[in-house]
Amino acid sequence: MKILILLSNGFEETEIIAPADILVRGGVQVEICSITGKREMTGTHNFILLADSVLPSVVGEETAELIASKYDGVFLPGGQPNASNLQQDLRVIELVRAFHKQDKLVSAICAAPCVLEKAGLLTDKRATSYPGCVNSDNCREYTDEKVVRDGKVVTGKAAGAAIDFGLELLWALDMGEKAIEVKKQIFY
Amino acid sequence: MKILILLSNGFEETEIIAPADILVRGGVQVEICSITGKREMTGTHNFILLADSVLPSVVGEETAELIASKYDGVFLPGGQPNASNLQQDLRVIELVRAFHKQDKLVSAICAAPCVLEKAGLLTDKRATSYPGCVNSDNCREYTDEKVVRDGKVVTGKAAGAAIDFGLELLWALDMGEKAIEVKKQIFY
Repeated sequence: MKILILLSNGFEETEIIAPADILVRGGVQVEICSITGKREMTGTHNFILLADSVLPSVVGEETAELIASKYDGVFLPGGQPNASNLQQDLRVIELVRAFHKQDKLVSAICAAPCVLEKAGLLTDKRATSYPGCVNSDNCREYTDEKVVRDGKVVTGKAAGAAIDFGLELLWALDMGEKAIEVKKQIFY
Repeated sequence: MKILILLSNGFEETEIIAPADILVRGGVQVEICSITGKREMTGTHNFILLADSVLPSVVGEETAELIASKYDGVFLPGGQPNASNLQQDLRVIELVRAFHKQDKLVSAICAAPCVLEKAGLLTDKRATSYPGCVNSDNCREYTDEKVVRDGKVVTGKAAGAAIDFGLELLWALDMGEKAIEVKKQIFY
């Protein structure tokens, strides 16, 4: 199993690290891919993270399909301006659509579900987000739950839900037993 | 308010990021200081973090007192071999003792309370840690609670307690109102 994380500057640190940590603990490979052209990125609270890779400068529909075929899902952390950067980046929109088209996990937390909204993936889904970040008219059902899984689309509300969101990603990858194991391991 | 975080390779990513994130959200300055001589450090689950500073190669009692005088507390994240690295580093032991002597916050989570144990700071304290990481004979009272605050010493049990631990650090800094505010802000 391998998950692609798309990230830019101004990410919310707990929202990327806690779910990614839980995925790795569950046995999932995780690749942090910078959309900025540089590996070094600074979060909302000034912590500096090095990405594993950098997204090619051009990603059209075909490239997006090829990239998505190499992973089992994509995860978009929140934080601003990270979520807006992701939303305004057509490469990210292409990628998210490609993962969805290939029936793979598509996930976002806090402000980042706005990217799934822009890609049109929430119209037939129940979803959550940080209040005000998604227009409920663009979802089948908008809820204020902390974490929502609807098929292969998982959304989370805020940094305080980051651990629950990470565990839900394992469930969405059909790794529920691992989710239970990790939850015990970290005494959550 | 300013907190010093001492860190080496093999840190548990959620255990440093979630509490540090909460401190910054609460208005506390945070400085990640590498004890390895290099700013770039890799966590247990292979995420790479850049420290803000690097600890001087020699820190005796006097230097430790001087460093401690510039901060309001020290925080030691867990993860292995990070916790063992911290425990075996005499500079870290001197620093932890200096913070304690100056009646400042001394805090550690998961495996890292073993550093406070080695520094002899738990003999008159209630404390917790990841099971097996601290000998209960060296504490006034060893508990299996997720977070324990006894005076200016705060200990946490595991990654799953990282958010609660971060909020407790704010309480220990007499910033309870901020703790309540941050908890709401992140929907925890």
